[in-house]
Amino acid sequence: MNGNKAEIIRILQSSGGKPVSGQEIGSKLGITRAMVWKYIREIRKDGYEIKSSPKVGYALKSSPDMLYPEQIKAGLETSLLGREILYYNEVESTNSIAKELAAKCPEGTVVIAETQKKGRGRMGSEWQSLPGGIWFSVILKPSVPLEYTAKITLVAGLAVSKAMRELGVDARIKWPNDVLIHGKKVCGILTEVDAEVEKIDHVILGIGINANVRQSEFREEIREDSTSLEEEVGKPIDRIAFMKQLLFELEQQYIKFTTQKFSDIVSEWISLSDTIGKEVTVTTPVKIIEGKAVGVTDKGALLVKTKNNVREEIIAGRCRYSK
Amino acid sequence: MNGNKAEIIRILQSSGGKPVSGQEIGSKLGITRAMVWKYIREIRKDGYEIKSSPKVGYALKSSPDMLYPEQIKAGLETSLLGREILYYNEVESTNSIAKELAAKCPEGTVVIAETQKKGRGRMGSEWQSLPGGIWFSVILKPSVPLEYTAKITLVAGLAVSKAMRELGVDARIKWPNDVLIHGKKVCGILTEVDAEVEKIDHVILGIGINANVRQSEFREEIREDSTSLEEEVGKPIDRIAFMKQLLFELEQQYIKFTTQKFSDIVSEWISLSDTIGKEVTVTTPVKIIEGKAVGVTDKGALLVKTKNNVREEIIAGRCRYSK
Repeated sequence: MNGNKAEIIRILQSSGGKPVSGQEIGSKLGITRAMVWKYIREIRKDGYEIKSSPKVGYALKSSPDMLYPEQIKAGLETSLLGREILYYNEVESTNSIAKELAAKCPEGTVVIAETQKKGRGRMGSEWQSLPGGIWFSVILKPSVPLEYTAKITLVAGLAVSKAMRELGVDARIKWPNDVLIHGKKVCGILTEVDAEVEKIDHVILGIGINANVRQSEFREEIREDSTSLEEEVGKPIDRIAFMKQLLFELEQQYIKFTTQKFSDIVSEWISLSDTIGKEVTVTTPVKIIEGKAVGVTDKGALLVKTKNNVREEIIAGRCRYSK
Repeated sequence: MNGNKAEIIRILQSSGGKPVSGQEIGSKLGITRAMVWKYIREIRKDGYEIKSSPKVGYALKSSPDMLYPEQIKAGLETSLLGREILYYNEVESTNSIAKELAAKCPEGTVVIAETQKKGRGRMGSEWQSLPGGIWFSVILKPSVPLEYTAKITLVAGLAVSKAMRELGVDARIKWPNDVLIHGKKVCGILTEVDAEVEKIDHVILGIGINANVRQSEFREEIREDSTSLEEEVGKPIDRIAFMKQLLFELEQQYIKFTTQKFSDIVSEWISLSDTIGKEVTVTTPVKIIEGKAVGVTDKGALLVKTKNNVREEIIAGRCRYSK
């Protein structure tokens, strides 16, 4: 979206519903009233409801429920994440787009879409990405060794849980990369990396959130185990406000991660974990481990105590709770 | 290169210099003698010297010193590595090409070039890739967790050293990714990975070897610390034969790696290591470790015992020997 359009929206939003004259807007932006009027018409086409009263000015009545970058950026309290946002109505997968663009984009660039046709879960599994959800990927370029990659998934899980808890729901993290509310999945995280062994080139952190989605809309196979923020809060959430909060939390945790304060992240992660204390079966490409999840190491590995009292450290795997 | 051309070269090579008639070649390939003659002319253009005597036939006098795929494939004792070889005279970087093609190529595909204009060392450093060297990348797709990546560098270092030792030189591995002869660098390895946390999508294993390169050709800054197989053996090596041996060794070690016999690799790696027992300074993106290199763990990490008697496990880093 054009910078002037974004600025006009910002001016109208910050007036708190009070009309702002075309002249005032024009003088702030250094453009004519006729140009202001031209932009107002374009902004209306984007779904914003704007009342225009002769000699009084323009008043914003409602904003569309879309994840428009200028809406997310307005008042965003981050200095790195989301300073660049690429918006799409529909994509195959935000992670795929972010991967293609990673080399050319600054760190912190966000790729966001209203829906994904081929949303990806881990290990190539399909992820249902319904309209009303929040589907985005962040391009990160931390100067850390490859072995730190797993920690980034924990960073993201913690940030998502904390942002959700601000809505008053009991979001908890299922190791390694799901966020649950009342045991049902509300968010999935897919961390992909491109690296040399001793240094990450870039990480694509894909986050998918069932925000304003109804239980009945989920595919039947996953319906019982899935939930959404709308269902848990009891009404649709403000996706823009949530996105601002989430990017803020994510940046806070990411800063701790890059400044070697991972132990802080681990303790908070454990306090919000759904997994620690449970009997689990973890499947990795090379082995299956059964036992009790007892902690997370400072390397980001899940600690599982097996029946034979062996403590296994698992960096990544698929985790199922034993019934 | 056309399959018939490759087959004709193979027939002429395996006759040991004795002439083979056009009729014999034609009947083996199911083509006319006129077609055989057409291919012979093309083969000559590729640099093969072929004597043609009327009523006697064709005899191969010499092959060009080029890394042609059909030459490498002839008699190659591998079942996975090098079954597909993409050959280039000059490229920016074989790793970059392999990276672009990885999704579409079968595992084991080799990208090889006579020279690289922008050969890459680790961490974006430049690597001088002179004609006469061997510059190639292998596309690997092991079903293992991301944390196994560092092991692949060890696999490659071991294979390169073993192949070189067949030439009678005392090749030794400098952790993590250089091969030295008499303390001078003869090979560099660059391992790049594209992955989810719990499963590698693909690894690009880039191997650069100073094969038939003269000491005087190296850039001045690196000349003192570099050597070549030609310098060490005392004459130019047969690059094709060496490449066959190297792909064979690499496949042997890679099979051990994928079948969870990494401990075998570690013990042989240690026996050929130049680093173990030395005082080292290892720099990673997050810390610097000084101490004595005392071993390699079953995760592929270098074990360094510091002055304070702490045993540090380092997965990857830049290693310098303390003087």
